[in-house]
Amino acid sequence: MNTGEYGYPKFNFKQQAHPVSIPPPQPFIKSLKNTVKETLFPDDPLRQFKDQPPSRKIILGIQYIFPIFDWGSRYNLSFFKSDIIAGITIASLSIPQGISYAKLANLPPIFGLYSSFVPPLVYAMMGSSKDVAVGTFAVASLLIGSMLGAVVNANENPKLHLQLALTATFVAGVLQASLGIFRLGFIVDFLSHSTIIGFMAGSAIVVSLQQLKGILGLQHFTQSTDLISVLRSVFTQTHKWRWECAVLGICILLCLLIARFVSTRRPKLFWISAMAPLTSVILSSVFVYLTHAHKHGVQVIGELKKGLNPITIKELSFGSEYLFTAIKTGTVTGVIALAEGIAVGRSFAMLKNYNIDGNKEMIAFGMMNIAGSCTSCYVTTGPFSRSAVNLNAGCKTAMSNIVMAITVMITLLFLTPLFYYTPIVVLSSIIVSAMLGLINYKEAIHLWSLDKFDFVVCMSAFLGVVFWSVEIGLVIAVALSLLRILLFVARPKTYALGHIPDSSIYRSIDQYQNAKTIPGILILQIDAPIYFANVAYLRERILRWVDEEEDKLKSLGGNSLQYVVLALSAVGNIDTSGITMLGEVKKLMERRGLKLILANPGGEVIKKMNKAKLIDVVGEEWIYLTLGEAVGACNFMLR
Amino acid sequence: MNTGEYGYPKFNFKQQAHPVSIPPPQPFIKSLKNTVKETLFPDDPLRQFKDQPPSRKIILGIQYIFPIFDWGSRYNLSFFKSDIIAGITIASLSIPQGISYAKLANLPPIFGLYSSFVPPLVYAMMGSSKDVAVGTFAVASLLIGSMLGAVVNANENPKLHLQLALTATFVAGVLQASLGIFRLGFIVDFLSHSTIIGFMAGSAIVVSLQQLKGILGLQHFTQSTDLISVLRSVFTQTHKWRWECAVLGICILLCLLIARFVSTRRPKLFWISAMAPLTSVILSSVFVYLTHAHKHGVQVIGELKKGLNPITIKELSFGSEYLFTAIKTGTVTGVIALAEGIAVGRSFAMLKNYNIDGNKEMIAFGMMNIAGSCTSCYVTTGPFSRSAVNLNAGCKTAMSNIVMAITVMITLLFLTPLFYYTPIVVLSSIIVSAMLGLINYKEAIHLWSLDKFDFVVCMSAFLGVVFWSVEIGLVIAVALSLLRILLFVARPKTYALGHIPDSSIYRSIDQYQNAKTIPGILILQIDAPIYFANVAYLRERILRWVDEEEDKLKSLGGNSLQYVVLALSAVGNIDTSGITMLGEVKKLMERRGLKLILANPGGEVIKKMNKAKLIDVVGEEWIYLTLGEAVGACNFMLR
Repeated sequence: MNTGEYGYPKFNFKQQAHPVSIPPPQPFIKSLKNTVKETLFPDDPLRQFKDQPPSRKIILGIQYIFPIFDWGSRYNLSFFKSDIIAGITIASLSIPQGISYAKLANLPPIFGLYSSFVPPLVYAMMGSSKDVAVGTFAVASLLIGSMLGAVVNANENPKLHLQLALTATFVAGVLQASLGIFRLGFIVDFLSHSTIIGFMAGSAIVVSLQQLKGILGLQHFTQSTDLISVLRSVFTQTHKWRWECAVLGICILLCLLIARFVSTRRPKLFWISAMAPLTSVILSSVFVYLTHAHKHGVQVIGELKKGLNPITIKELSFGSEYLFTAIKTGTVTGVIALAEGIAVGRSFAMLKNYNIDGNKEMIAFGMMNIAGSCTSCYVTTGPFSRSAVNLNAGCKTAMSNIVMAITVMITLLFLTPLFYYTPIVVLSSIIVSAMLGLINYKEAIHLWSLDKFDFVVCMSAFLGVVFWSVEIGLVIAVALSLLRILLFVARPKTYALGHIPDSSIYRSIDQYQNAKTIPGILILQIDAPIYFANVAYLRERILRWVDEEEDKLKSLGGNSLQYVVLALSAVGNIDTSGITMLGEVKKLMERRGLKLILANPGGEVIKKMNKAKLIDVVGEEWIYLTLGEAVGACNFMLR
Repeated sequence: MNTGEYGYPKFNFKQQAHPVSIPPPQPFIKSLKNTVKETLFPDDPLRQFKDQPPSRKIILGIQYIFPIFDWGSRYNLSFFKSDIIAGITIASLSIPQGISYAKLANLPPIFGLYSSFVPPLVYAMMGSSKDVAVGTFAVASLLIGSMLGAVVNANENPKLHLQLALTATFVAGVLQASLGIFRLGFIVDFLSHSTIIGFMAGSAIVVSLQQLKGILGLQHFTQSTDLISVLRSVFTQTHKWRWECAVLGICILLCLLIARFVSTRRPKLFWISAMAPLTSVILSSVFVYLTHAHKHGVQVIGELKKGLNPITIKELSFGSEYLFTAIKTGTVTGVIALAEGIAVGRSFAMLKNYNIDGNKEMIAFGMMNIAGSCTSCYVTTGPFSRSAVNLNAGCKTAMSNIVMAITVMITLLFLTPLFYYTPIVVLSSIIVSAMLGLINYKEAIHLWSLDKFDFVVCMSAFLGVVFWSVEIGLVIAVALSLLRILLFVARPKTYALGHIPDSSIYRSIDQYQNAKTIPGILILQIDAPIYFANVAYLRERILRWVDEEEDKLKSLGGNSLQYVVLALSAVGNIDTSGITMLGEVKKLMERRGLKLILANPGGEVIKKMNKAKLIDVVGEEWIYLTLGEAVGACNFMLR
């Protein structure tokens, strides 16, 4: 009989077994190209351009950059009827919301209206979503207010504050567009769903707390956003609370909440909650006008300038000493705006069964903010609440954004004086009512029941935002999410596998109660790539498995352990440290008189083992395609 | 015939197939305990304490913390003979190296000797490696010199510089000990082998460049460490070069290199290279003494204080305005010291077939540096060069460190005046010769051939250190290494699987040329956990696979695609976003008239699918244990 290195019969089994293939070597350039393509162009954006004549390619290219030329050619009257209703509905929401959010950003209220005019027009040209409604949103407004507020007092130096806000918007736009152009959209994927849930709920609390200023009619208020500072600020000046404001604010808030409740119960009545803010603005303005409440402590908006957006390209201040703050604010708000806008676009596209291209959306958002920063607008996105109203109102295309922009334009040109008597407290109530809808506690409970770690991420974002600051909360949650990925690789699961009776299947004995271990053979599955971050752990862990198995066999008094089979099917990749580790494990096993067998190494693994000559070290005859064959060979030799 | 939801025959196959098990639910506390154990206590350090009487537990506990009580009881005369030879050998290396490295750190030379006295004694008590020889090392010395030098000029304010260096050492010690105590040793695993190769080579270049000051006898030199600043500093003062120094330095360097070359060729002659530094110090000192070269421009060490380490506990300055710099320096040097010491300990333990406990080593290194900072020592570790000499000299236990410490103690008490005439240039030559050995270009070539990404990490560490700074190089390399792990998860590989003839095996058609695809059935393997970071990509990628397969089938004019089988065996875990994604893919497939089948979901996956009620959405009858059974069922229905 032909015997191998250790006196074991050699190849008797191997000749019948299916050999493990080493994938054909790929030229370096080709594999690099492939990696770059999968990393940066996973959606294969140039697919539709393939095999087209040049003239068609140009048309497709223009349609690719400006989707309006794509859907515009198929646009018809029935679409337009739907879009005009949706557009007017969202305009009626966006006018009061715009004014409220501008106050939150410590900007003059008119800038909220400006921001609902230019950006929607840009998005309508370039955006690929049919349902996103563009406008300012609470979190970015709050961040602009608080982050810039930390270096510049908006009341003392409003011009500088405005310049910084516009610069931050420009930075956000450039960042968004470049992420899209350089195909780095996947960075936004690292903001997980659970992060966003926690972050949104936290921001909602923080934004609502800020409204206590308006609702209680306070003149002075803390610049911080955390719960403790705000409550301290509120309760140290109880003597300055104005009951007139508070009563008015709470009444309006109740009305708005009731309107939302009705709309939630009966989706057909969506217009009630959509119209409620504008209605309350009108009613409360009339009320103030009639009762002269503005002379009795109820603050009003006052004069709003008539006219369209002034050009502000000269206000972008890159020489300012606060440039770094503007860049930081722009980066944070830009990323959050992207995350919100793209998540909204994706979910609604999923609902209506069409696709949106994340990177293209980023370019659209980026251009919209760059254009915005030059025309008196601050950071905008496609906020969830407004887009949901747009969808419910039956929008068909991005035309609804154009309708909204025109409505806002008319307001800017002719109707601004009407807001003179609008009380500030109604704006606060509108914000609070919008914010309360963002607290998705049901989803948090769902996370807890499904995945504890996701829940921890969600809660840390929430608590970080509420008790610390919006940026810190976000950073903590993202860091935790990344830590999870790193821990998955740094501490990979290893399972002992057993044989499922009447089959040639081997599965984890934890999962399959009927799986039987085979005396003398320890089968281990490694559930992650073997990388530098886990080689020390895996070496220890494999040795511990062997120790435990030997102890168990000793206490049973049966066969001693002879074979250790590593099931590598779930090992997606290996690096040089991993190759070294496999060699070391082989040596350690040999010292203990055990044979190491590898089963089903994947393409990457076997290729690198071959290059590093590890196949010769382990022995070709100890590498099998399937666990069945590996165990069969062991059993044959155990006999 | 019993038919299911879509009119397909239901369960005909399922009854014969092996069902997929859902692992039994684990109480939350138990699974949390398990996760914590695997993350922080993977080596099961309390294993030996199990089932022991309390008195034995106390003895084991003391032996655990102070391994000297463990090996000390088995110590004998023959061990001692070996250790005394090794100890004297490393002392003869450590005395000149200690003085040289102290110069590199801009500290008085005597501190190099102090640092070779206390720390080795502490390590001998607490360390678990038999081969590590403790002392100062070049990178930490350079970092202390350059990082502290950036805020304090060591020549103008030597006392403050010394205080900061001691404080940094204390910080490094506390950091190291706490990483060990809180079982966070795995953080060091994130410094991959390729990072260390590149980092070491870069540091060697940078440290050697710094020696141009000593070799050329320059008085003024740049505080920066990057190649360009140093070369500019050297070549702008060519008129100040001293040829006497340069000639002497180059001669000594050549001798040292020849000695090393001989020792490398014939390992038995290790003592030649080990003794060479001390010999060259003695010879050059005698030479200077005889020729009065110190009066002709060759700088000498001058007076060294006699006596043992002064207590410096009062010098630790936590109130200093430079505390932050000290903390930063301590953190960086502490982590690098750990990485070097533990890598050395592990490799030598591997060689001699014993185990060292990483976390315990960290505590030992930490205590050694804390004790050191109170007794005039700066950051120490177990450097590679010195430990290799120790091993070659035949050390048996940590006793060799005690012998070295005693030799240094005798030097400090009686022999320091002998170093008066030692020229500084000889110290520079000793450093350069030690550094050149750290440039492992062969390993870099090996990395290139085996794993391109590892090579990129290695080169970026190298170039970052050489052209930027030591810390930046390290940060870039670690960030790239982490990026690789994140990209592995963010862009998981997906493979089409085919059937291997005459078997029930399905494998990647890229790896196995003989694997055949099955018309009408697309089998996809996903090679990473399904996490928030990849759900968007995977959804796109699965759709692209389906598109491509449908195009292919259309061009062939055969069967159309009917089934998409997802092979989940390599999906180690899934989070809530992943669960949502699977549900969405199911919906998308349905819209295209395709059936989605899942094969071999692992324990974690099926558990979460069950909790999220996704099993009902996908349909229990579409989840199979093996690909063979899944494809069998498809074929049965295709017929």
